[in-house]
Order: sequence, then C-alpha cells, then structure tokens
Amino acid sequence: MSTAAPRTAGPDHLWSVDEHLDDILATVRPLEPIELNLLDAQGCVLVEDITVPVSLPPFDNSSMDGYAVRVADVAGASEQYPAALEVVGDVAAGQADLLHVGPGQAARIMTGAPLPPGAETIVPVEWTDGGLGEGPVAGMRARSLAPEAAAGQVCVYRPAGARAHVRAEGSDVKAGDRAMEAGTILGPPQISLLAAIGRGTVRVRPRPRVVVLSTGSELVQPDEELGPGQIYDSNSFALTAAARDAGAIAYRVGAVADDAATLRDTIEDQLVRADLMVTTGGVSVGAYDVVKEALSYAADADEPGSGIEFRKLAMQPGKPQGFGSIGPDHTPLLALPGNPVSSYVSFELFVRPAIRTLMGLTDVHRPRVRAKLTAEKALTSPKGRRQFLRGRYADGGVTPVGGAGSHLVAALAQADALIVVPEDVESVVPGAEVEVVLLG
Amino acid sequence: MSTAAPRTAGPDHLWSVDEHLDDILATVRPLEPIELNLLDAQGCVLVEDITVPVSLPPFDNSSMDGYAVRVADVAGASEQYPAALEVVGDVAAGQADLLHVGPGQAARIMTGAPLPPGAETIVPVEWTDGGLGEGPVAGMRARSLAPEAAAGQVCVYRPAGARAHVRAEGSDVKAGDRAMEAGTILGPPQISLLAAIGRGTVRVRPRPRVVVLSTGSELVQPDEELGPGQIYDSNSFALTAAARDAGAIAYRVGAVADDAATLRDTIEDQLVRADLMVTTGGVSVGAYDVVKEALSYAADADEPGSGIEFRKLAMQPGKPQGFGSIGPDHTPLLALPGNPVSSYVSFELFVRPAIRTLMGLTDVHRPRVRAKLTAEKALTSPKGRRQFLRGRYADGGVTPVGGAGSHLVAALAQADALIVVPEDVESVVPGAEVEVVLLG
Repeated sequence: MSTAAPRTAGPDHLWSVDEHLDDILATVRPLEPIELNLLDAQGCVLVEDITVPVSLPPFDNSSMDGYAVRVADVAGASEQYPAALEVVGDVAAGQADLLHVGPGQAARIMTGAPLPPGAETIVPVEWTDGGLGEGPVAGMRARSLAPEAAAGQVCVYRPAGARAHVRAEGSDVKAGDRAMEAGTILGPPQISLLAAIGRGTVRVRPRPRVVVLSTGSELVQPDEELGPGQIYDSNSFALTAAARDAGAIAYRVGAVADDAATLRDTIEDQLVRADLMVTTGGVSVGAYDVVKEALSYAADADEPGSGIEFRKLAMQPGKPQGFGSIGPDHTPLLALPGNPVSSYVSFELFVRPAIRTLMGLTDVHRPRVRAKLTAEKALTSPKGRRQFLRGRYADGGVTPVGGAGSHLVAALAQADALIVVPEDVESVVPGAEVEVVLLG
Repeated sequence: MSTAAPRTAGPDHLWSVDEHLDDILATVRPLEPIELNLLDAQGCVLVEDITVPVSLPPFDNSSMDGYAVRVADVAGASEQYPAALEVVGDVAAGQADLLHVGPGQAARIMTGAPLPPGAETIVPVEWTDGGLGEGPVAGMRARSLAPEAAAGQVCVYRPAGARAHVRAEGSDVKAGDRAMEAGTILGPPQISLLAAIGRGTVRVRPRPRVVVLSTGSELVQPDEELGPGQIYDSNSFALTAAARDAGAIAYRVGAVADDAATLRDTIEDQLVRADLMVTTGGVSVGAYDVVKEALSYAADADEPGSGIEFRKLAMQPGKPQGFGSIGPDHTPLLALPGNPVSSYVSFELFVRPAIRTLMGLTDVHRPRVRAKLTAEKALTSPKGRRQFLRGRYADGGVTPVGGAGSHLVAALAQADALIVVPEDVESVVPGAEVEVVLLG
C-alpha cells in the first residue's frame, strides 16, 4: 500500500470537518485485490469483469417432472381420448447417457434433466396417469418404491406444443455474455450467479484488517475491579464492533498505559496485521497525551509519506484528531480522542469512510436526510464548530437524546442518528429542519 | 430445543404462503441464551436487564487539560491581572494517590483525572500561561519533555465558577440505574455502554448455526469440469451467504447426490452442529426427489414432534416446500425447491424469518413498501398463486428484471426487491401500485 503524506497546514490551523475528511480520503487507497474463495468474498467488491464461460442452462432441460414425448404423439390427447405411449425409461437430472424417444414412445423425465434425443416437448406428470392406468395423478412414485414405473405404458390427457416446459440452453445467460462488472458488491444473489457459471474463486478487494487500541493509564478491562481514579475501557470494544459493522476484520488490542515507549512498541508490533490502525485517547493538549507524544515525530527521511499530524478540528465533540501513516508500508493511522462519545462520533465520520475506501466501495458514507427537530427547547451550539448531537430518527423527525456532553455514553446507546448543527448556527429551534446522519 | 410437530393438513391441501410461514414461526423457538464475551455478542439479542453496578463517571473528574484550583483564587483573574498560583504537581488520569490543592495553589490536571481534594473548579490550560510565564498557551508540553512544568508558578487569565469543566460522578449513569433492557440488539453503541459499566460478558441468544446442503446428482462443484447433463451447484453457496447475511453462522455442505440413504446419513451426521437445517432440491413430484423420499417418514413414536411434511404452496416460484423437525433435538428443517431462484425466494420468505426467530428478534421480516410499477407491459400472474417477481426498487417505483422463469439467476443478481402479485390478481398494468419486499 502506498499512502501520500498528509498535507501539513501548521499547528494553528483549525481544520474543518470536511478538510480533515478530504485529507483522509485523498490518502487512503483501496487495498490490492486478491483471489478469494466465493464464500470468503461475501460483502467484498469485485475487481474483474466476469464473462460467462458456459451457457446457463448448459443444455435444453425439463422444467417439470413428467414425460418427454413427440408433439405429434400427444396432439389430440384429452381425458376422454388419452394418448397411450410406451414408456422407454427414466431420464434423471445429471444423467449422462440418454435414451432415444421414438414415435409412440415417452421417457419419464425429471426437473432439470436433459431433453433426450427424439423428444420435442414435455408433458407434466399431472397431465398423465403416471403409468398407473388409473386416471390423472398428482406425482410420481419414488423410483426406489416403484422401479417398474420406468417401463410400461403411460396415458397422456392433454396435448403439449413444441418445447413446452423446456428451458432452452442459454436462456438464462449465454457463453460470452458479461455476467457481472468490476465494482459489483458480492451479496448472496451475486454469489449465486458466480457459482452457477462455475466460478469457485473471484478476484476482489479483501476486507481491511483494522487494529484498534485505546490508551490511558486509567483504563481497566471490564469484569476487573476498579481502583481509585480508574474507569473501564470501552472505546476499544466499541470501535472494534463498529469496524466489524463497517465491513472490516477488526482486532482489539487491550488498553495501553500512558507511556510513549510502550505505545510505540505496541503499535510497531501490531503493524504486521494492520491495513488501518485506530487509536483512542492521548491526542489533546495534556502533558500525558502519549499518542501525540509518541507519534508526532517528523516523517522519517527514509520513509517518505510517513508521519502522523495532530490537528484541531472545528467540531464538537471530537476537536483533537490525529491522522497520517506509519511504518514501512505507510499504514494509515487515525488517532481519535479518548472520550467515548467523541471517539464514536469520530469513528462514524472519519474511520468508517476510510474502511469503506480500503474495501474499494464508492459509497463510503452513512446516508444523510433532512429531518424536523422535535425538542422541548432550542439546541445551542458553539459558533464556528460543527456540532454532532445524538438523536433518534423516526418518520422524518429527529429527537435529541442526552446532552452535548461528550461522556454521555448511556445516551449514545439510545441514539440511531447524529444531528448536524453547522458551524455558523448557534441555535436550532424546535420544528426547524436539520441535517441528520443515519447510523442504522 | 423443543419444536412442536407441524400441523398436518393432508397431502391435497394447497397451503397459502401465510399458512406455511405461520406454521414455521409457530414451531421455531428462540435459542437458549448463553453467556458470551462482549465482542462475541455483537448483533445478538440481550436476554437480561442490565443494572449499572457503579456510577459513570465513577468519580468527579476533569473534562479538560488544565489546572485544578479553588474558585476564590481565580475570582478576579484577567489577562491584565492574572492570578498567580503555586503549581503543586500533576494529576494524571488513572492516578490513585491525589495531592491536595490548598489556597493559592493549583494542580496541573489532565482530562479524565479525578478532581483532587481541595480543588473546586478546573481552569483549561488555554486560559493560562501553562506555567511558562509567557502569556496564554495552546497546550501543555509533554511531561517527558518538560518534567519541571509540574512545579513552579502558573498564571491564570480568566475566572472559573464552581465545578466548571468537572464531570460529576454519576452524571452519565448512576449505580442502580437500568442501563439496558432485555431484548436490546447489541450494536457498537450498546457494546460501548456495557464495557463502560464493566460488563465483559453478557447473556444473549447466540447466532444460530445453519447447515445448508443442496441435493442433485447433476450438481458439480464450481471450478470443476461440467460433464454431459451436469450443472454447477449454486444453491448451497447462495443460501450459505444469505444465512450469514441474516445473522447466522452458516455451514455449507457440498451437494449430495440423489440417493435417499446417502442424504439421510449426511443429514444425521450434520445434525450435531445444526440449530436449523436447510436443503434444496428433491421436494417435488418426481421419482428422484430424494429429500422427499428420505424425509417424509411418519414421526417416530419415540420422538414426538419429529417428521418433515411436504406441501404444495399457492406460490410462484416455490410451489413445493418441506418443513418439520428432525433428530433427537427436533432440529427444524426447511426443504426448499431446487431451482436457484425458487430456493432463493423461499429462503427470503421462510428461512430468513426462521433464522431471525431463532436469534430472538421480534422484527423477523424484510421491510415491505408500496411502489408504482414501471414496466413496458402488464405483468401476468397465475390465478390462485401468489407470485414473487424480481425487481429493482428506486424512489417509490419498481421495475421488473428478468421474467417469471424460476431459473433466471442472472436476473436475480440484478434485483434488490421482490414484487408481490396477490393470489387473486392475474394482471398488473404499468403505473399500478404493487407491494414490494425490499431485499437490501
């Protein structure tokens, strides 16, 4: 992977949300394609045009269980005057050696079985006596229960035109047709078609491997005892789950203490399995902000394009952010703030599009809609910063949940949308129309 | 798992789509809950009410990097007349032993660190000289680069009210609060909250294990050579992918030849890892329909509730269907028809809701909307059968793709919706409103 160096705008530049996102999307490149087994390629983007190697169906075959006959032999058949034909045997699906159907003859044929030579049409079994001589039947008896039914005589009660109930060779797709285009996302129906035309493997962009680690000496693993001043690590769990939700293979690394050397070692150790690295915490203006301390070094002269830049964004929550690339492969790294809500919102706005770009998707963003604000009082927002409030969206309306506080993780768990308040808006009154990002 | 015997309506009864679906949903029961690690529970349904064991935040803490001070000491501070305070040390996040902030003193404090005893409010670092004596600063220097900054003197340029920039203990959630209710689906924000309150494992209904096998002596594995009368197995791939898409852990068993004993052995062998079994093919009225032959035995007297019933549905495609339960645990089994499009449509209508019922979800169906038919000519549909045509939906309109033929897998790969034509409708003119199942 090759990633360009992030453009450096100086430490005092206040980045807009869009500038930061544009920088990320201009830097992150889709992963190199690999050949994957069909079921391993589910959800991936195809990078090759697929041409049909062999027509579907590959041969004329029956769409019904019934009898393969000649048209003239059943031309005048009725319940009163059935056509009596000699049953010459069975044609089952997958059968290679086909019998020949001559004048006055019929072959018992199963759905999907090749139309045997000599036969011109198919009479469904329900239009016959099934060879039992007792009037119309509902079906055939299983071969194992009645092997003798493959011989004898069958009465046909209705005529059939030429090639009735015959699926023609190539009527689904023809050899040489374009079956699928590069760029197609492989869902179940696409996998169905690829298997049907004989493709066991396909060339796709793989799912990105995302390594998530949180930083903070105060962080304790859930289920352990909290000491004084400690809190539970939630970011590494939330973002690992969110990365999987976005389509990635995500690895959660436990929380790393606030020590720059340990953090640097951990990141270097993890790089081997990362197509994208995400950290949380340690990116602000504090003296113990180790992510910033460990990673804001000048780009290595031997590794052009490497280096992480730490920025302030005109955004709430999520003002401090880091972005760049690291290591010999210039692996992209996004350093998110440590507040759980800030990191989650940052993930949605910046990491999710990066993951989907790595996958080769063109539609990398969450859907956005306009919605009417339902609230008891006006929303307030700091001037010059784009605010993202948690909300619930339904039927064209959106209701805020929780407050603007970036630690209200309880409210986040109730939200299914982000309410966007633009930089130049300081108040939104109830009933006003707002932009909403749907998280569903 | 305990499943009831399917109600038996006799071989001649023509089942409606809804009767068949109701029978399935009345039989299939949600899986027994198990305790799972948080990240393994993603997408699962919680079965316990979660109470907050410890308040969030667990202690008053700083929401900014700055200085913890007493209100009176910074009361009149301004840029012209800054308050000069003695820096007594650092308070980092996760620090257990806290220093005391007395009159005229300040402690350098980091975001998330506990408010130290004696301090009443937080002054952000940007309102101070950062202890450098050279006017307002943008941030602190990293501790490792400037360990001396934890002592000396700091100038504060703005006053701060009591408990400014303090996140109060319990302001997010309080110990004893209900954090989450049974029935919640665990997405990333829910996982975030559960980790934050210290839950490393949760009690959920697990993802169902679905075994998919296709039957047919004509079936060849993709990438192998096609012999005369052979076609590629696509159903086992398509339905495995679709089962995963629905939330299941799906296992694809290769195609099984049309031999009842082999099929029975394979199914019995696979039962150990199946919460639900899905077969395709061999369910119609042909003499080689082995699924029907192998499984339509009377319920074993020692195993009440077992047995598979084969039915005809008033539906196109997908007329022949089998449903029941099998084996000592009465594992539900759905036997779908073998045509790729029939099996896929049957999966969407019957298997997907069954999988989602096993997961304990209440909303088990695909969304349905009304849409305006865009077509060059009227759609025709057989009387008395509910027809499901493949279509593409956009902006309130739906356009059919491909024809009604149940083998048009190429068209299926283009479709994102099913157009529903009711039993009593034989023709739908362009511009008419139709019901649409959204597959997206």
